[in-house]
Amino acid sequence: MNVLIIYAHPEPTSLNGSLKDFAIRRLEANGHTVQVSDLYAMQWKAQVDAADTLERQAGTPFRPSLDSQRAFANGWQSSDIAAEQDKLRWADAVIFQFPLWWFSMPAIMKGWVDRVYAYGFAYGVGEHSDARWGNRYGEGSLAGKRAMLVVTTGGWESHYSARGINGPIGDVLFPIQHGILYYPGFDVLPPFVAYRTGKMDDARAAVVRDALGQRLDALFETAPIPFRPQNSGQYEIPALTLRDDIAPERSGFAAHMA
Amino acid sequence: MNVLIIYAHPEPTSLNGSLKDFAIRRLEANGHTVQVSDLYAMQWKAQVDAADTLERQAGTPFRPSLDSQRAFANGWQSSDIAAEQDKLRWADAVIFQFPLWWFSMPAIMKGWVDRVYAYGFAYGVGEHSDARWGNRYGEGSLAGKRAMLVVTTGGWESHYSARGINGPIGDVLFPIQHGILYYPGFDVLPPFVAYRTGKMDDARAAVVRDALGQRLDALFETAPIPFRPQNSGQYEIPALTLRDDIAPERSGFAAHMA
Repeated sequence: MNVLIIYAHPEPTSLNGSLKDFAIRRLEANGHTVQVSDLYAMQWKAQVDAADTLERQAGTPFRPSLDSQRAFANGWQSSDIAAEQDKLRWADAVIFQFPLWWFSMPAIMKGWVDRVYAYGFAYGVGEHSDARWGNRYGEGSLAGKRAMLVVTTGGWESHYSARGINGPIGDVLFPIQHGILYYPGFDVLPPFVAYRTGKMDDARAAVVRDALGQRLDALFETAPIPFRPQNSGQYEIPALTLRDDIAPERSGFAAHMA
Repeated sequence: MNVLIIYAHPEPTSLNGSLKDFAIRRLEANGHTVQVSDLYAMQWKAQVDAADTLERQAGTPFRPSLDSQRAFANGWQSSDIAAEQDKLRWADAVIFQFPLWWFSMPAIMKGWVDRVYAYGFAYGVGEHSDARWGNRYGEGSLAGKRAMLVVTTGGWESHYSARGINGPIGDVLFPIQHGILYYPGFDVLPPFVAYRTGKMDDARAAVVRDALGQRLDALFETAPIPFRPQNSGQYEIPALTLRDDIAPERSGFAAHMA
Protein backbone atom coordinates (compact mmCIF):
# COMPACT_ATOMS: atom_id res chain seq x y z
CA MET A 1 0.00 0.00 0.00
CA ASN A 2 1.02 3.65 -0.30
CA VAL A 3 1.90 5.47 2.90
CA LEU A 4 2.57 9.20 3.18
CA ILE A 5 4.34 10.61 6.24
CA ILE A 6 3.84 14.31 6.94
CA TYR A 7 6.66 15.10 9.33
CA ALA A 8 7.59 18.26 11.24
CA HIS A 9 10.71 18.47 13.39
CA PRO A 10 13.62 20.85 12.80
CA GLU A 11 16.40 18.45 13.87
CA PRO A 12 17.17 15.20 11.99
CA THR A 13 19.09 13.74 14.98
CA SER A 14 16.12 14.20 17.34
CA LEU A 15 13.96 11.42 18.76
CA ASN A 16 11.35 12.47 16.21
CA GLY A 17 13.88 12.16 13.42
CA SER A 18 14.88 8.67 14.51
CA LEU A 19 11.25 7.57 14.84
CA LYS A 20 10.51 8.89 11.35
CA ASP A 21 13.50 6.99 9.87
CA PHE A 22 12.45 3.88 11.77
CA ALA A 23 8.89 4.18 10.45
CA ILE A 24 10.07 4.44 6.84
CA ARG A 25 12.22 1.29 7.21
CA ARG A 26 9.48 -0.64 8.97
CA LEU A 27 6.79 0.27 6.46
CA GLU A 28 9.05 -0.57 3.52
CA ALA A 29 10.03 -3.88 5.15
CA ASN A 30 6.30 -4.60 5.31
CA GLY A 31 6.05 -4.11 1.55
CA HIS A 32 4.56 -0.63 1.51
CA THR A 33 5.71 2.27 -0.65
CA VAL A 34 6.54 5.35 1.41
CA GLN A 35 6.71 9.05 0.61
CA VAL A 36 7.72 11.64 3.20
CA SER A 37 6.87 15.32 3.30
CA ASP A 38 9.63 16.53 5.63
CA LEU A 39 8.27 20.02 6.12
CA TYR A 40 11.41 21.57 7.61
CA ALA A 41 13.63 20.02 4.94
CA MET A 42 11.21 21.30 2.28
CA GLN A 43 11.23 24.77 3.89
CA TRP A 44 7.47 24.60 3.77
CA LYS A 45 5.81 28.04 3.64
CA ALA A 46 3.50 28.21 6.64
CA GLN A 47 1.34 31.27 6.05
CA VAL A 48 -1.73 31.41 3.85
CA ASP A 49 -1.50 34.48 1.62
CA ALA A 50 -2.26 35.86 -1.83
CA ALA A 51 0.87 34.22 -3.30
CA ASP A 52 -0.87 30.85 -2.93
CA THR A 53 -3.02 31.75 -5.95
CA LEU A 54 -0.99 32.05 -9.16
CA GLU A 55 -3.50 34.03 -11.24
CA ARG A 56 -4.87 36.89 -9.22
CA GLN A 57 -6.33 40.16 -10.38
CA ALA A 58 -3.94 42.79 -9.04
CA GLY A 59 -5.41 45.13 -6.46
CA THR A 60 -8.36 42.93 -5.49
CA PRO A 61 -8.71 42.01 -1.81
CA PHE A 62 -7.40 38.59 -0.83
CA ARG A 63 -10.20 36.37 0.46
CA PRO A 64 -8.66 33.16 1.83
CA SER A 65 -11.65 30.89 1.13
CA LEU A 66 -12.77 32.37 -2.19
CA ASP A 67 -9.24 32.61 -3.52
CA SER A 68 -8.58 29.02 -2.49
CA GLN A 69 -11.78 27.90 -4.25
CA ARG A 70 -10.90 29.70 -7.48
CA ALA A 71 -7.30 28.54 -7.45
CA PHE A 72 -8.28 24.91 -6.82
CA ALA A 73 -11.02 24.90 -9.46
CA ASN A 74 -8.90 26.56 -12.16
CA GLY A 75 -5.49 25.00 -11.64
CA TRP A 76 -4.08 28.25 -10.25
CA GLN A 77 -2.74 26.81 -7.02
CA SER A 78 0.88 27.32 -6.03
CA SER A 79 2.79 24.19 -7.13
CA ASP A 80 3.80 23.20 -3.58
CA ILE A 81 0.12 23.00 -2.60
CA ALA A 82 -0.88 20.99 -5.68
CA ALA A 83 2.03 18.56 -5.11
CA GLU A 84 0.88 17.81 -1.56
CA GLN A 85 -2.69 17.24 -2.74
CA ASP A 86 -1.35 14.76 -5.32
CA LYS A 87 0.50 12.91 -2.56
CA LEU A 88 -2.72 12.72 -0.56
CA ARG A 89 -4.59 11.31 -3.58
CA TRP A 90 -1.81 8.73 -4.01
CA ALA A 91 -1.76 7.63 -0.36
CA ASP A 92 -3.76 4.80 1.19
CA ALA A 93 -2.67 5.92 4.64
CA VAL A 94 -1.22 9.16 5.98
CA ILE A 95 0.84 9.50 9.14
CA PHE A 96 1.20 12.93 10.71
CA GLN A 97 4.26 12.95 12.96
CA PHE A 98 5.18 15.89 15.19
CA PRO A 99 6.15 16.97 18.69
CA LEU A 100 3.16 18.37 20.59
CA TRP A 101 4.03 22.05 21.03
CA TRP A 102 1.59 24.06 23.13
CA PHE A 103 -1.04 21.34 22.85
CA SER A 104 -1.11 21.37 19.06
CA MET A 105 1.08 20.79 16.02
CA PRO A 106 4.11 22.96 15.22
CA ALA A 107 3.26 26.05 13.17
CA ILE A 108 4.91 24.66 10.04
CA MET A 109 2.53 21.68 10.05
CA LYS A 110 -0.50 23.86 10.80
CA GLY A 111 0.57 25.82 7.74
CA TRP A 112 0.55 22.61 5.71
CA VAL A 113 -3.07 22.06 6.77
CA ASP A 114 -4.11 25.68 6.23
CA ARG A 115 -2.67 25.74 2.69
CA VAL A 116 -3.11 22.17 1.36
CA TYR A 117 -6.70 21.85 2.61
CA ALA A 118 -8.15 23.92 -0.21
CA TYR A 119 -11.79 24.89 -0.68
CA GLY A 120 -13.21 22.24 -3.03
CA PHE A 121 -10.61 19.72 -1.89
CA ALA A 122 -10.88 19.40 1.90
CA TYR A 123 -13.94 21.58 2.54
CA GLY A 124 -16.77 23.08 0.54
CA VAL A 125 -17.25 19.67 -1.11
CA GLY A 126 -20.68 18.24 -1.98
CA GLU A 127 -24.25 19.46 -1.78
CA HIS A 128 -25.95 21.28 1.09
CA SER A 129 -29.59 20.28 1.45
CA ASP A 130 -32.12 19.23 4.07
CA ALA A 131 -30.44 15.82 4.24
CA ARG A 132 -26.77 16.62 3.73
CA TRP A 133 -24.42 19.34 4.85
CA GLY A 134 -21.60 18.86 2.40
CA ASN A 135 -19.31 15.86 2.17
CA ARG A 136 -17.54 16.11 5.48
CA TYR A 137 -17.09 14.35 8.81
CA GLY A 138 -16.83 10.85 7.44
CA GLU A 139 -17.23 11.70 3.75
CA GLY A 140 -15.13 13.80 1.40
CA SER A 141 -12.13 13.76 -0.90
CA LEU A 142 -10.06 11.64 1.47
CA ALA A 143 -12.69 9.01 2.30
CA GLY A 144 -11.40 5.46 2.20
CA LYS A 145 -7.94 6.51 3.38
CA ARG A 146 -6.55 6.02 6.87
CA ALA A 147 -4.77 8.61 9.01
CA MET A 148 -2.82 8.30 12.25
CA LEU A 149 -1.04 10.78 14.48
CA VAL A 150 2.43 9.96 15.84
CA VAL A 151 3.05 12.47 18.61
CA THR A 152 5.74 13.09 21.21
CA THR A 153 5.14 15.08 24.40
CA GLY A 154 7.39 16.40 27.14
CA GLY A 155 4.59 15.89 29.68
CA TRP A 156 3.86 12.66 31.50
CA GLU A 157 1.10 10.24 30.56
CA SER A 158 -0.77 10.99 33.80
CA HIS A 159 -0.83 14.70 32.91
CA TYR A 160 -2.90 13.70 29.87
CA SER A 161 -5.17 11.21 31.67
CA ALA A 162 -8.93 11.55 32.26
CA ARG A 163 -8.37 13.97 35.17
CA GLY A 164 -4.85 15.10 34.25
CA ILE A 165 -4.20 18.82 34.20
CA ASN A 166 -3.45 19.06 30.45
CA GLY A 167 -6.74 17.38 29.59
CA PRO A 168 -7.16 13.83 28.27
CA ILE A 169 -4.94 13.24 25.25
CA GLY A 170 -7.94 12.20 23.13
CA ASP A 171 -9.63 15.53 23.87
CA VAL A 172 -6.45 17.57 23.34
CA LEU A 173 -6.12 15.89 19.92
CA PHE A 174 -9.84 16.04 19.04
CA PRO A 175 -9.57 19.30 17.07
CA ILE A 176 -6.91 17.58 14.94
CA GLN A 177 -8.29 14.04 14.75
CA HIS A 178 -11.95 15.00 14.28
CA GLY A 179 -11.60 18.54 12.93
CA ILE A 180 -8.66 18.08 10.54
CA LEU A 181 -8.60 14.34 9.74
CA TYR A 182 -12.17 13.03 10.00
CA TYR A 183 -13.57 16.20 8.42
CA PRO A 184 -12.30 15.55 4.85
CA GLY A 185 -13.09 11.84 5.17
CA PHE A 186 -10.12 10.02 6.71
CA ASP A 187 -10.69 6.96 8.89
CA VAL A 188 -8.72 8.06 11.96
CA LEU A 189 -6.77 5.46 13.91
CA PRO A 190 -6.05 5.86 17.62
CA PRO A 191 -2.97 8.06 18.01
CA PHE A 192 0.48 6.78 18.87
CA VAL A 193 1.80 8.98 21.68
CA ALA A 194 5.27 8.86 23.28
CA TYR A 195 5.28 10.75 26.60
CA ARG A 196 8.02 12.37 28.69
CA THR A 197 10.46 12.59 25.83
CA GLY A 198 12.67 15.15 27.56
CA LYS A 199 14.11 12.30 29.64
CA MET A 200 14.40 9.49 27.12
CA ASP A 201 17.28 7.06 27.53
CA ASP A 202 18.19 4.42 24.97
CA ALA A 203 16.27 1.66 26.74
CA ARG A 204 13.03 3.62 26.81
CA ALA A 205 13.56 4.83 23.23
CA ALA A 206 13.78 1.17 22.17
CA VAL A 207 10.48 0.43 23.93
CA VAL A 208 8.84 3.37 22.16
CA ARG A 209 10.24 2.25 18.80
CA ASP A 210 8.98 -1.30 19.29
CA ALA A 211 5.53 -0.06 20.23
CA LEU A 212 5.44 2.18 17.16
CA GLY A 213 6.56 -0.75 15.02
CA GLN A 214 3.58 -2.78 16.18
CA ARG A 215 1.21 0.05 15.37
CA LEU A 216 2.75 0.37 11.89
CA ASP A 217 2.45 -3.39 11.33
CA ALA A 218 -1.28 -3.10 12.08
CA LEU A 219 -1.79 0.13 10.12
CA PHE A 220 -4.34 -1.39 7.74
CA GLU A 221 -6.09 -3.61 10.30
CA THR A 222 -6.52 -1.34 13.33
CA ALA A 223 -10.10 -0.25 13.97
CA PRO A 224 -10.60 3.50 13.49
CA ILE A 225 -11.97 5.81 16.17
CA PRO A 226 -15.78 5.46 15.84
CA PHE A 227 -16.59 9.10 15.10
CA ARG A 228 -20.19 9.60 13.99
CA PRO A 229 -20.71 10.39 10.29
CA GLN A 230 -22.43 13.74 9.81
CA ASN A 231 -24.87 12.73 7.07
CA SER A 232 -25.95 9.44 8.62
CA GLY A 233 -29.16 10.77 10.14
CA GLN A 234 -27.62 11.15 13.60
CA TYR A 235 -27.40 14.95 13.36
CA GLU A 236 -30.08 17.58 12.85
CA ILE A 237 -29.53 19.57 9.66
CA PRO A 238 -28.65 22.46 9.44
CA ALA A 239 -28.15 22.87 13.21
CA LEU A 240 -25.69 19.95 13.17
CA THR A 241 -26.47 19.06 16.75
CA LEU A 242 -26.66 15.41 17.72
CA ARG A 243 -30.27 14.19 17.70
CA ASP A 244 -31.93 14.30 21.13
CA ASP A 245 -32.49 10.53 21.21
CA ILE A 246 -28.86 9.65 20.52
CA ALA A 247 -26.60 9.38 23.58
CA PRO A 248 -28.87 11.87 25.39
CA GLU A 249 -26.66 11.84 28.49
CA ARG A 250 -23.57 12.96 26.59
CA SER A 251 -22.23 16.34 25.54
CA GLY A 252 -18.87 17.66 24.40
CA PHE A 253 -16.36 15.77 22.27
CA ALA A 254 -17.39 12.39 23.71
CA ALA A 255 -20.86 12.73 22.17
CA HIS A 256 -19.37 12.40 18.69
CA MET A 257 -18.01 8.90 19.24
CA ALA A 258 -20.37 5.95 18.86
CA MET B 1 -3.92 50.52 30.88
CA ASN B 2 -1.70 48.93 28.23
CA VAL B 3 -3.37 46.62 25.73
CA LEU B 4 -1.54 44.46 23.22
CA ILE B 5 -3.40 42.99 20.23
CA ILE B 6 -1.82 39.97 18.56
CA TYR B 7 -3.57 39.84 15.21
CA ALA B 8 -3.43 37.36 12.34
CA HIS B 9 -5.34 37.89 9.12
CA PRO B 10 -3.80 38.32 5.67
CA GLU B 11 -6.29 40.89 4.35
CA PRO B 12 -6.68 44.38 5.89
CA THR B 13 -10.12 44.89 4.28
CA SER B 14 -11.52 41.69 5.84
CA LEU B 15 -14.06 41.51 8.66
CA ASN B 16 -11.13 40.66 10.93
CA GLY B 17 -9.26 43.74 9.76
CA SER B 18 -12.24 45.98 10.43
CA LEU B 19 -12.80 44.46 13.88
CA LYS B 20 -9.13 44.98 14.72
CA ASP B 21 -9.28 48.64 13.64
CA PHE B 22 -12.51 49.07 15.60
CA ALA B 23 -10.91 47.54 18.70
CA ILE B 24 -7.95 49.90 18.56
CA ARG B 25 -10.24 52.94 18.31
CA ARG B 26 -12.53 51.74 21.09
CA LEU B 27 -9.70 50.91 23.48
CA GLU B 28 -8.00 54.24 22.83
CA ALA B 29 -11.30 56.06 23.31
CA ASN B 30 -11.49 54.34 26.69
CA GLY B 31 -8.11 55.83 27.63
CA HIS B 32 -5.95 52.76 27.07
CA THR B 33 -2.65 52.65 25.21
CA VAL B 34 -2.65 50.08 22.41
CA GLN B 35 0.09 48.23 20.59
CA VAL B 36 -0.65 45.82 17.74
CA SER B 37 1.45 42.91 16.53
CA ASP B 38 -0.03 42.52 13.04
CA LEU B 39 1.69 39.24 12.23
CA TYR B 40 1.05 39.28 8.47
CA ALA B 41 2.15 42.91 8.16
CA MET B 42 5.29 42.07 10.19
CA GLN B 43 5.93 39.03 7.95
CA TRP B 44 6.30 37.07 11.17
CA LYS B 45 8.50 33.98 10.78
CA ALA B 46 6.38 31.02 11.78
CA GLN B 47 8.80 28.12 12.12
CA VAL B 48 10.97 27.41 15.16
CA ASP B 49 14.52 26.72 13.98
CA ALA B 50 18.20 27.17 14.79
CA ALA B 51 18.17 30.75 13.46
CA ASP B 52 16.11 31.73 16.52
CA THR B 53 19.30 31.50 18.61
CA LEU B 54 21.88 34.09 17.64
CA GLU B 55 24.94 32.46 19.22
CA ARG B 56 25.05 28.81 18.33
CA GLN B 57 28.01 26.48 18.17
CA ALA B 58 28.20 25.45 14.52
CA GLY B 59 27.57 21.80 13.84
CA THR B 60 25.78 21.03 17.11
CA PRO B 61 22.30 19.54 16.90
CA PHE B 62 19.42 21.99 17.32
CA ARG B 63 17.37 21.15 20.42
CA PRO B 64 14.27 23.39 20.44
CA SER B 65 13.83 23.49 24.23
CA LEU B 66 17.49 23.61 25.28
CA ASP B 67 18.37 26.14 22.60
CA SER B 68 15.43 28.29 23.64
CA GLN B 69 16.54 28.10 27.29
CA ARG B 70 20.12 29.11 26.50
CA ALA B 71 19.09 31.88 24.15
CA PHE B 72 16.59 33.34 26.64
CA ALA B 73 19.02 33.15 29.59
CA ASN B 74 21.96 34.66 27.71
CA GLY B 75 20.32 37.34 25.58
CA TRP B 76 20.91 35.35 22.40
CA GLN B 77 17.32 35.38 21.18
CA SER B 78 16.45 36.59 17.72
CA SER B 79 15.39 40.25 18.06
CA ASP B 80 11.85 39.65 16.80
CA ILE B 81 11.28 37.18 19.64
CA ALA B 82 12.73 39.47 22.31
CA ALA B 83 10.61 42.39 21.03
CA GLU B 84 7.40 40.41 21.42
CA GLN B 85 8.36 39.34 24.95
CA ASP B 86 8.94 43.02 25.79
CA LYS B 87 5.46 43.85 24.50
CA LEU B 88 4.01 41.11 26.71
CA ARG B 89 5.85 42.51 29.76
CA TRP B 90 4.47 45.96 28.92
CA ALA B 91 0.87 44.82 28.50
CA ASP B 92 -1.81 44.72 31.17
CA ALA B 93 -4.10 42.82 28.79
CA VAL B 94 -3.48 40.90 25.58
CA ILE B 95 -6.07 40.23 22.88
CA PHE B 96 -5.44 37.40 20.42
CA GLN B 97 -7.54 37.99 17.31
CA PHE B 98 -7.78 35.47 14.49
CA PRO B 99 -10.12 33.54 12.20
CA LEU B 100 -10.59 29.96 13.43
CA TRP B 101 -8.94 27.88 10.71
CA TRP B 102 -9.28 24.13 11.12
CA PHE B 103 -10.34 24.52 14.73
CA SER B 104 -7.23 26.40 15.80
CA MET B 105 -5.28 29.58 15.10
CA PRO B 106 -3.68 30.32 11.71
CA ALA B 107 -0.16 28.89 11.37
CA ILE B 108 1.44 32.34 11.55
CA MET B 109 -0.02 32.89 15.03
CA LYS B 110 0.88 29.39 16.20
CA GLY B 111 4.40 30.31 15.13
CA TRP B 112 4.23 33.40 17.31
CA VAL B 113 3.39 31.16 20.29
CA ASP B 114 5.99 28.51 19.41
CA ARG B 115 8.78 31.12 19.14
CA VAL B 116 7.88 33.84 21.67
CA TYR B 117 7.01 31.35 24.43
CA ALA B 118 10.64 30.64 25.32
CA TYR B 119 11.89 28.19 27.91
CA GLY B 120 12.45 30.29 31.04
CA PHE B 121 9.84 32.81 29.90
CA ALA B 122 6.59 30.90 29.31
CA TYR B 123 7.60 27.44 30.52
CA GLY B 124 10.35 25.88 32.58
CA VAL B 125 9.81 28.66 35.16
CA GLY B 126 10.03 28.08 38.93
CA GLU B 127 10.90 25.15 41.16
CA HIS B 128 9.74 21.55 40.86
CA SER B 129 9.22 19.92 44.25
CA ASP B 130 6.73 17.79 46.18
CA ALA B 131 4.52 20.85 46.52
CA ARG B 132 5.02 22.70 43.24
CA TRP B 133 5.42 21.74 39.60
CA GLY B 134 6.89 24.90 38.19
CA ASN B 135 5.15 28.25 37.95
CA ARG B 136 2.43 27.39 35.48
CA TYR B 137 -1.33 27.08 35.15
CA GLY B 138 -2.23 30.17 37.10
CA GLU B 139 1.29 31.29 37.96
CA GLY B 140 4.22 32.34 35.78
CA SER B 141 5.78 35.25 33.94
CA LEU B 142 2.44 36.58 32.71
CA ALA B 143 0.52 36.35 35.99
CA GLY B 144 -1.55 39.41 36.79
CA LYS B 145 -2.25 40.10 33.12
CA ARG B 146 -5.49 39.41 31.30
CA ALA B 147 -5.94 37.67 27.97
CA MET B 148 -8.93 37.31 25.68
CA LEU B 149 -9.52 35.59 22.36
CA VAL B 150 -11.42 37.38 19.60
CA VAL B 151 -12.33 34.70 17.08
CA THR B 152 -14.34 34.50 13.87
CA THR B 153 -15.75 31.25 12.49
CA GLY B 154 -17.44 30.25 9.26
CA GLY B 155 -19.53 27.68 11.15
CA TRP B 156 -22.80 28.43 12.91
CA GLU B 157 -23.14 28.89 16.66
CA SER B 158 -25.19 25.68 16.94
CA HIS B 159 -22.35 23.73 15.31
CA TYR B 160 -20.24 24.75 18.33
CA SER B 161 -22.91 24.12 20.99
CA ALA B 162 -22.85 21.45 23.72
CA ARG B 163 -23.90 18.73 21.26
CA GLY B 164 -22.84 20.49 18.05
CA ILE B 165 -20.74 18.50 15.61
CA ASN B 166 -17.62 20.69 15.87
CA GLY B 167 -17.54 20.34 19.65
CA PRO B 168 -18.46 23.05 22.17
CA ILE B 169 -16.55 26.25 21.45
CA GLY B 170 -15.11 26.29 24.98
CA ASP B 171 -13.67 22.82 24.46
CA VAL B 172 -12.37 23.59 20.97
CA LEU B 173 -10.58 26.61 22.45
CA PHE B 174 -9.42 24.85 25.66
CA PRO B 175 -5.97 23.93 24.28
CA ILE B 176 -5.47 27.64 23.56
CA GLN B 177 -7.21 29.22 26.54
CA HIS B 178 -5.93 26.77 29.16
CA GLY B 179 -2.82 25.39 27.44
CA ILE B 180 -1.42 28.58 25.89
CA LEU B 181 -2.91 31.42 27.97
CA TYR B 182 -3.54 30.11 31.49
CA TYR B 183 -0.29 28.08 31.43
CA PRO B 184 2.12 31.06 31.67
CA GLY B 185 -0.17 32.84 34.11
CA PHE B 186 -2.75 34.89 32.23
CA ASP B 187 -6.22 35.40 33.67
CA VAL B 188 -8.28 34.24 30.70
CA LEU B 189 -11.54 36.03 29.92
CA PRO B 190 -14.42 34.27 28.15
CA PRO B 191 -13.78 34.43 24.40
CA PHE B 192 -15.53 36.76 22.01
CA VAL B 193 -16.70 34.66 19.08
CA ALA B 194 -18.39 35.88 15.88
CA TYR B 195 -20.03 32.98 14.02
CA ARG B 196 -21.05 32.44 10.40
CA THR B 197 -18.84 35.15 9.06
CA GLY B 198 -19.00 33.87 5.48
CA LYS B 199 -22.45 35.47 5.22
CA MET B 200 -22.02 38.71 7.08
CA ASP B 201 -24.01 41.71 5.87
CA ASP B 202 -23.52 45.24 7.16
CA ALA B 203 -26.34 45.00 9.67
CA ARG B 204 -24.99 41.86 11.30
CA ALA B 205 -21.42 43.21 11.19
CA ALA B 206 -22.66 46.23 13.15
CA VAL B 207 -24.22 43.95 15.77
CA VAL B 208 -20.95 42.03 16.07
CA ARG B 209 -18.97 45.26 16.39
CA ASP B 210 -21.27 46.57 19.11
CA ALA B 211 -21.00 43.33 21.06
CA LEU B 212 -17.22 43.41 20.77
CA GLY B 213 -17.24 47.03 21.93
CA GLN B 214 -19.08 46.05 25.10
CA ARG B 215 -16.57 43.29 25.80
CA LEU B 216 -13.70 45.74 25.30
CA ASP B 217 -15.34 48.28 27.61
CA ALA B 218 -15.43 45.59 30.32
CA LEU B 219 -11.95 44.24 29.60
CA PHE B 220 -10.63 44.98 33.09
CA GLU B 221 -13.82 44.10 34.97
CA THR B 222 -14.96 40.83 33.36
CA ALA B 223 -14.53 37.77 35.57
CA PRO B 224 -11.95 35.32 34.16
CA ILE B 225 -12.72 31.67 33.39
CA PRO B 226 -12.28 29.90 36.76
CA PHE B 227 -9.52 27.48 35.76
CA ARG B 228 -7.99 25.67 38.75
CA PRO B 229 -4.46 26.78 39.74
CA GLN B 230 -2.00 23.89 39.56
CA ASN B 231 -0.10 24.55 42.80
CA SER B 232 -3.14 25.26 44.94
CA GLY B 233 -3.32 21.80 46.49
CA GLN B 234 -6.09 20.66 44.13
CA TYR B 235 -3.76 18.46 42.05
CA GLU B 236 -1.58 15.50 43.03
CA ILE B 237 2.10 16.19 42.39
CA PRO B 238 3.86 14.94 40.27
CA ALA B 239 0.96 13.01 38.65
CA LEU B 240 -0.91 16.32 38.14
CA THR B 241 -4.26 14.61 38.28
CA LEU B 242 -7.12 16.37 40.06
CA ARG B 243 -7.45 15.09 43.65
CA ASP B 244 -10.03 12.31 44.04
CA ASP B 245 -12.18 14.36 46.41
CA ILE B 246 -12.47 17.36 44.08
CA ALA B 247 -15.34 17.25 41.58
CA PRO B 248 -15.18 13.43 41.67
CA GLU B 249 -17.94 13.13 39.05
CA ARG B 250 -16.04 15.14 36.45
CA SER B 251 -13.38 14.28 33.91
CA GLY B 252 -12.02 15.91 30.77
CA PHE B 253 -11.62 19.65 30.26
CA ALA B 254 -14.60 20.49 32.47
CA ALA B 255 -12.82 19.09 35.54
CA HIS B 256 -10.31 21.94 35.40
CA MET B 257 -12.88 24.67 35.93
CA ALA B 258 -14.02 25.42 39.48
